[in-house]
Amino acid sequence: MKPVNVGLIGLGTVGGGVVRILKEHHEDFLRDQGVDIRLVAAASTSREQAVALGIEDIYHSDGYEVIHNPEVDVVIELVGGTGIALKFVTAALEAGKRVVTANKAIMATAGHQLLETAGSKGLELAFEASVGGGIPIIGALRNSLIGNRIESVIGIVNGTTNYMLARILDGLPYAEALAEAQQLGFAEADPTADVEGHDAAAKIAILTTLAFNTEVVLEQVYTEGITRVTPTDLAVASSLGYAVKLLAIANRTPEGIEMRVHPTMLPVAHPLSSVNGVMNAIYVVGDAVGETMFYGAGAGAGPAASAVVGDLIEVAQRLTYNNRRPYIRFGTEQLPLKPIEDVITRYYLRLNVPDRAGIVATTAAAFAEQGVSISSLQQAAGDGQTAELVYVTHSAREGALRATLAAIEASGVLVAEPVVIRVME
Amino acid sequence: MKPVNVGLIGLGTVGGGVVRILKEHHEDFLRDQGVDIRLVAAASTSREQAVALGIEDIYHSDGYEVIHNPEVDVVIELVGGTGIALKFVTAALEAGKRVVTANKAIMATAGHQLLETAGSKGLELAFEASVGGGIPIIGALRNSLIGNRIESVIGIVNGTTNYMLARILDGLPYAEALAEAQQLGFAEADPTADVEGHDAAAKIAILTTLAFNTEVVLEQVYTEGITRVTPTDLAVASSLGYAVKLLAIANRTPEGIEMRVHPTMLPVAHPLSSVNGVMNAIYVVGDAVGETMFYGAGAGAGPAASAVVGDLIEVAQRLTYNNRRPYIRFGTEQLPLKPIEDVITRYYLRLNVPDRAGIVATTAAAFAEQGVSISSLQQAAGDGQTAELVYVTHSAREGALRATLAAIEASGVLVAEPVVIRVME
Repeated sequence: MKPVNVGLIGLGTVGGGVVRILKEHHEDFLRDQGVDIRLVAAASTSREQAVALGIEDIYHSDGYEVIHNPEVDVVIELVGGTGIALKFVTAALEAGKRVVTANKAIMATAGHQLLETAGSKGLELAFEASVGGGIPIIGALRNSLIGNRIESVIGIVNGTTNYMLARILDGLPYAEALAEAQQLGFAEADPTADVEGHDAAAKIAILTTLAFNTEVVLEQVYTEGITRVTPTDLAVASSLGYAVKLLAIANRTPEGIEMRVHPTMLPVAHPLSSVNGVMNAIYVVGDAVGETMFYGAGAGAGPAASAVVGDLIEVAQRLTYNNRRPYIRFGTEQLPLKPIEDVITRYYLRLNVPDRAGIVATTAAAFAEQGVSISSLQQAAGDGQTAELVYVTHSAREGALRATLAAIEASGVLVAEPVVIRVME
Repeated sequence: MKPVNVGLIGLGTVGGGVVRILKEHHEDFLRDQGVDIRLVAAASTSREQAVALGIEDIYHSDGYEVIHNPEVDVVIELVGGTGIALKFVTAALEAGKRVVTANKAIMATAGHQLLETAGSKGLELAFEASVGGGIPIIGALRNSLIGNRIESVIGIVNGTTNYMLARILDGLPYAEALAEAQQLGFAEADPTADVEGHDAAAKIAILTTLAFNTEVVLEQVYTEGITRVTPTDLAVASSLGYAVKLLAIANRTPEGIEMRVHPTMLPVAHPLSSVNGVMNAIYVVGDAVGETMFYGAGAGAGPAASAVVGDLIEVAQRLTYNNRRPYIRFGTEQLPLKPIEDVITRYYLRLNVPDRAGIVATTAAAFAEQGVSISSLQQAAGDGQTAELVYVTHSAREGALRATLAAIEASGVLVAEPVVIRVME
């Protein structure tokens, strides 16, 4: 059997996990999967990483030396980000190498071009680890669920914010929840990508492309983060029978694909409601399969390494057995995207207003003018000077809701920025 | 492109679902998956089914006519059971046909021989639909999670009993819960396979074989059903913070593989606890990926058809692109099975005893003699004549627990059969 020679760029925690799995399972893969996988080159900016992994003999400081090593059949890119990583992946494909990557950023922004390049050369570009860590959601959408017309993909795909929302529900203000997540290593020093929803947006862009067979990129995802959510909002949601999660949503509708990331109230009976801590889950509805959900750790060395190795085995089998079937083809449907203004959902609005007569009437009139029907209103006294109005609406167009809010703001009755959380049934 | 010709045996609800998907998605599969799938023959005992599906022109009353049709490349077996279905699958493989089946019974009893026959002839035998309906658990274990050493597979794989347990928790006696499930079409007229745990046992035998790469069959699964569970037990469990589920469990232990099906108390925070109604879920722990869970409808025409078509596409791609990689190989590890007596877990025991002094001491002494440590004891008055003792133990060997129960029974203090539920932490 011809060996499959692998070059690895990036020897951080995920890279280290991959090295260990390939070492421990070499004989299993040979015997049970029919592939002889050999790690023949590895690159990192730190020689110490290679030394610690016992692979100093194949160490390079320059990723291009791995790519252009004529022995290397498959390049694993674990550098991350869109800078040098994109150059590595592009160069590897141009050099005729198969690629396995965990990089959501390049797949959500340049995925189509990369897959087109790969496809035109008959090469694989595998990216299971780019979404949901070790959760095999890419494989499920590409293979097992292929007989379905997918209606919805809804994910909790960012563990950091899922952890923080639980702590805010415990009563911690946002800033304290963030500081705690940073101390525990769940959030980075610059938490922007997580808390503003950009990480989740990249992942739903990738999932939308696969699930609906249409071309979308990160920039097209409507994105709101969790920075304005308070313990009050989560407590009120809880009292109404809802959990609040940062959801990454892609829905097929007659008018086009809805694609959005924002905090969402969802009924506690929904399977996504009980996904706690840093765990991830992706809920998929297909016309044949009905409701399914895939749950697991969304980050960490082990889960990502598990996904990378799963991809590598598939690529290695295709190489070993000379399988020329089209590896992946998508974007053949060009579906319209629905503008966020046309999305129809229910809303939770918390308005901080002066504590005086007539304010409820003023605000309620603004809803009526835009045809936004009110489902419930709760008023809670604030500090004596101000009060909190919590509205929950019936289903309404986002555009009408925004016009309502603009009218309320223009009337000058808001003493703080309003909080808006969409409500899913 | 050479077409892939399919013969379908069994035109019930699942077969009908497959026919519809193949018709609706033919162009998608051609364009995006690179396969030209054509249904060229179908068999059923009822011509009316073929007429209703608009495929009377390819109808046969005899399954063997489908198998021996020289045009047919792939046979889909949707007859079920171990009788004629096993003969069809065997005959199809012997005739050199690839096979896709939804049949758990033949895979759990004769799977090894069938897979060996298929392997020796270089044919695929695909069976995703045999476990968990449309949940892609077989694909995950065979492909995406292959870099893991699997430690545990724990499933709620029987929707009928999961529904019934919820209704028993609502206060319905077992017989009423069963009657309701039968009325709703969730349970069959003869419910034995579901309520005695045999259906779940077949599924965990298949999952064990794949997850641990070892040969096991249905008969080796220790199996208890739900027929003795009462509303009282579920209420007590609930008050202690546990949900009760019929779990199908396979654990890797240093002494061998534990494989068992029985009602189990599990903490409400466990992901499996919130799997309600007729839904299924399979919880998998791997050394790299950590905890994962796969959730979805475990039965029904749509989910099963989704899984069958997912398998069919893979088989068709392998055929079209002449891929000769080993399709599936397992059983290369011959792991010992751990006898049920050596399983170590916690236990809930409910004892119905005469309401008189000294009974607690008598029963507690039996625990002490066998070295089974008591975690808690609750005594509830019964009808004045009898009382209920509810013991929860610390971890103990099943053998010691059984000896304890035997001693209590021998002492003559039981006025009804004891209820034992294993407790998972």
